[in-house]
Amino acid sequence: MDLKTMITGIKPLSEKSRKEAKNHLDNLVKPMGSLGRLEHLAIQCCGIFDGMDFSFSKKAIVVFCADNGVYEEGVSSSPQEVTKIQACNMIKGITGVSVLAKQGNIDLKVVDIGIKEDVKLEGILQEKIAYGTKNIAKEPAMTMEEIEKAITVGFSLVETLKKQGYETIGVGEMGVGNTTTATSVLIALLGLSVEECAGKGAGLTLEQWERKKEVLHNIQKKHGKQNQSPLEVLRKMGGLDLAGMVGVFLGGAYYRLPIVIDGVISMTGALLAYNLNPLVKEYLVPSHVSQEPGFLFAAERMGIAPYFLLNMRLGEGSGCPFTMYLMDAVVHILKEMGTFQEGKVDKRKYEDLWEDKP
Amino acid sequence: MDLKTMITGIKPLSEKSRKEAKNHLDNLVKPMGSLGRLEHLAIQCCGIFDGMDFSFSKKAIVVFCADNGVYEEGVSSSPQEVTKIQACNMIKGITGVSVLAKQGNIDLKVVDIGIKEDVKLEGILQEKIAYGTKNIAKEPAMTMEEIEKAITVGFSLVETLKKQGYETIGVGEMGVGNTTTATSVLIALLGLSVEECAGKGAGLTLEQWERKKEVLHNIQKKHGKQNQSPLEVLRKMGGLDLAGMVGVFLGGAYYRLPIVIDGVISMTGALLAYNLNPLVKEYLVPSHVSQEPGFLFAAERMGIAPYFLLNMRLGEGSGCPFTMYLMDAVVHILKEMGTFQEGKVDKRKYEDLWEDKP
Repeated sequence: MDLKTMITGIKPLSEKSRKEAKNHLDNLVKPMGSLGRLEHLAIQCCGIFDGMDFSFSKKAIVVFCADNGVYEEGVSSSPQEVTKIQACNMIKGITGVSVLAKQGNIDLKVVDIGIKEDVKLEGILQEKIAYGTKNIAKEPAMTMEEIEKAITVGFSLVETLKKQGYETIGVGEMGVGNTTTATSVLIALLGLSVEECAGKGAGLTLEQWERKKEVLHNIQKKHGKQNQSPLEVLRKMGGLDLAGMVGVFLGGAYYRLPIVIDGVISMTGALLAYNLNPLVKEYLVPSHVSQEPGFLFAAERMGIAPYFLLNMRLGEGSGCPFTMYLMDAVVHILKEMGTFQEGKVDKRKYEDLWEDKP
Repeated sequence: MDLKTMITGIKPLSEKSRKEAKNHLDNLVKPMGSLGRLEHLAIQCCGIFDGMDFSFSKKAIVVFCADNGVYEEGVSSSPQEVTKIQACNMIKGITGVSVLAKQGNIDLKVVDIGIKEDVKLEGILQEKIAYGTKNIAKEPAMTMEEIEKAITVGFSLVETLKKQGYETIGVGEMGVGNTTTATSVLIALLGLSVEECAGKGAGLTLEQWERKKEVLHNIQKKHGKQNQSPLEVLRKMGGLDLAGMVGVFLGGAYYRLPIVIDGVISMTGALLAYNLNPLVKEYLVPSHVSQEPGFLFAAERMGIAPYFLLNMRLGEGSGCPFTMYLMDAVVHILKEMGTFQEGKVDKRKYEDLWEDKP
């Protein structure tokens, strides 16, 4: 499928199914709207699946692993080899996202989309587009051809997972230096300043943080022209992980699956996809508030409010399992809660009393 | 056990185990502190259990059901019979908390501590202290003897559950009119105004809300003297559900189990227990931000920050299962994540780089 079809083939949610879901929820034995945002999530999911016929019994988190040339500017707290090592550790089941995904009965799909070295380990999906990106402080990260290939990797993965029966996909990453690329993209897309957006990544010292800001300034000086297309911004300042994510977000909307956002990198991927087609937003499910300052600017631009306040800054997709637990809760609420009639509560006694609060 | 022993027998967390937990977490294959508040929760739990030997394989939510005499002032959106009906519906497994507890493999303990009528249904724990409280707009809710009995019910229940192998307990309630009693207690304990604290309960109309505020003013005029003891405030303005909760919060601290707070009623119960002995706080685990405005004042007073933004206002203990999922996550993180050595990452390369952010 060509990129244009991926972008323009997205349809809005089913309004009919959203209304039916609202009616169903309003007839469950509870004050109207009292389950708050869980009800909104339920309505969204019914709109995506065009009905209540979904169970989230198969869930996946896709972790795009890629290296970033900008590492050589000294913007990260981690040695570059950590991208490869942690990709392998995910398969071994010992990283943060590994144990949290296992807890939630979620399958991990670890994708080498651009690790600097070859990684020969069973379980890692081999989709390498390049051995890392170029240093964006000096030149564009990649070519438009590489971007299209990487987006297609993500998009096709959604198609495959959907065929395998997966009903939701979380988006994670592993890539030393990728808060620098994501932040550069956010600054360019949102018209923000380096000072507003620059965070400490997974854990920079104050000195390293100053260095990162200097690099971010240089990147904007080099690439940060006004009114660039999202793909142009991605090509110059992004990473292969971000490009793969764009494919998953577009694919989720195209193939009608809710896609779960993790931290600042996947939020940036979501914003890129949203800028290609705003309908993507209807398929997005947020998780926690990342510690990276750019995160909330992107969320606000799309009108997305995260569910969790956990002060996490690990990445890997480690925030997604908690949201998927909420999605499971939605299934239980829709399918197992009793109606007023079943609960032997006379709804008429309430109807004059209750009002729904948005 | 007498009330004084329940209050004074509470000990602080193990500082040694907290430090050991922090060291363990810092040696796991992730940037230091990057799991944020999950790490704080892990450290808290290790401090409570004096080590890592806990698994939360048995979890319970205790739901105190009681009627409130203040119902006759027209402060609720629900008919009074709903207290009894929903207590039965919980046992039937069709209410909000029922389905969410089942999802989380959490046992529901539904306690009749003061429903207005007799409830003969297998599964409901019969601990009725009175057939509802008095109307607090006109007289004190209960006697000090009733309070002591109700606190003992909650406290003894924790002892029993601990003996049965439960490792955490959530606190819920069902009691038409109980946001009015809880809000009255909060106003008196925190020195706040009716306007700051009065919420719409499970779903009042604007007109009913005005009426509720008027009633709250009358209650404060009648009972709201300065510098009353927490038990005196509870006796005059509280409910039997609140008194039972105080027992669970004291019992959790006494028997060293983490106790999970749900919405504004259980937050008020926690604040009452905290006012009896501030060490209670170390055993408290918050869940979501209730829609009731008094909630955050109480949380702030104790220095407790909830984890979820779900806009829920159902009660029943329906917020607890989500927190218990986080507690399960903590167990997986502590026991299944790899160390730097296992992950083949050279921690020395990081040690000069990483700093922990509180």
